[in-house]
Amino acid sequence: MAKFNLKEILELEKYYRISLLNKISGLKSANLIGTRNENGISNLAIFNSVTHIGANPPFLGIIVRPLLVERQTYSNIKTGKYFTINQVTEQIHKQAHQSSAKYENNVSEFEECGLKEENIDDFPAPFVKESPIKIGLSYKEEHLITANNTILVIGKIEQIMLPDKALKQDGDIELDSLNAIAVGGLDSYYSCNRIGRYEYARPGKEFKKID
Amino acid sequence: MAKFNLKEILELEKYYRISLLNKISGLKSANLIGTRNENGISNLAIFNSVTHIGANPPFLGIIVRPLLVERQTYSNIKTGKYFTINQVTEQIHKQAHQSSAKYENNVSEFEECGLKEENIDDFPAPFVKESPIKIGLSYKEEHLITANNTILVIGKIEQIMLPDKALKQDGDIELDSLNAIAVGGLDSYYSCNRIGRYEYARPGKEFKKID
Repeated sequence: MAKFNLKEILELEKYYRISLLNKISGLKSANLIGTRNENGISNLAIFNSVTHIGANPPFLGIIVRPLLVERQTYSNIKTGKYFTINQVTEQIHKQAHQSSAKYENNVSEFEECGLKEENIDDFPAPFVKESPIKIGLSYKEEHLITANNTILVIGKIEQIMLPDKALKQDGDIELDSLNAIAVGGLDSYYSCNRIGRYEYARPGKEFKKID
Repeated sequence: MAKFNLKEILELEKYYRISLLNKISGLKSANLIGTRNENGISNLAIFNSVTHIGANPPFLGIIVRPLLVERQTYSNIKTGKYFTINQVTEQIHKQAHQSSAKYENNVSEFEECGLKEENIDDFPAPFVKESPIKIGLSYKEEHLITANNTILVIGKIEQIMLPDKALKQDGDIELDSLNAIAVGGLDSYYSCNRIGRYEYARPGKEFKKID
């Protein structure tokens, strides 16, 4: 059993610590965030921190790292007020990983990563054509986490698109049928197979498998 | 293609909307949070919102739903100042799902769900014996998300334990070797297989697969 206390964690070699700490909380979602800067140039970046905030009204949150260097996604959300969240699949996971490279802000990561920009209706931010689940959001609020100057950005969902085949009659989304993937930290990609979907759990009662 | 705008989302049947919105952002981590109330009774609850906040110093965040009803985990973190985050595996995913049931605060969910409480060193909050990755945290700060009164709680990592076999020489954690699972929304559990781990991506360069 490997065991680290806070002092030992702080003394770890930098990249060892980054890898360990980014993976310690388990598998995460993999999404591409699409934005546009004030010159209209599109930006695309992979995020593993998209978090459910609420369903009614519908909100999602993302964590942005400290603004010590330019954060294009954050800066574009603040100026443009809109962004998109697009599911990463097994088919596009390498292109998605490439979007984590630090590009200058006068090139579009869509082109550089080999993904297609899709503009839908009049939505101001670009979607990823290859992503089966596409979410359009507007900027709602943000919170500066004083512990380390990361920022929680909350977006309000303005529209959702997904394939009919993955959406069940009760609102369930079969993420495996879309080849949605999970990530470990910043560099490891995992395909997923459904073990089971279960009823709502109640004290003292055995819950049934739904499918 | 199914398409919903904000107005249509708000008009959906309640449980359809909850299922759709909880799954729309893809796969999430599955962790059990262990706490203790002021009478010393342990509490255990499954969370899919554990988020990496920082590595140096090490912080994790969780989202707590609005305090319209009693939130035992939140209330215990606020009074006790310590909590644990424990990885859910395929082997204990049904026990973890059972922990989502609403128990009274005079019973321990460990016993009710069939999981073993483990007290390690002098850490004030209980760990889950069956979890391969165990994290002990102290309360750091919180942020009220005014959009819908959910709360982001930040914890500082005080200690980490995980099996040697899953921890590589560079700090990588092989989550699949631990049978770590991912969840879709509140009711669907997924096993995961590693597709690949890749080098840091750089503009205009092809990255290599590490393993």
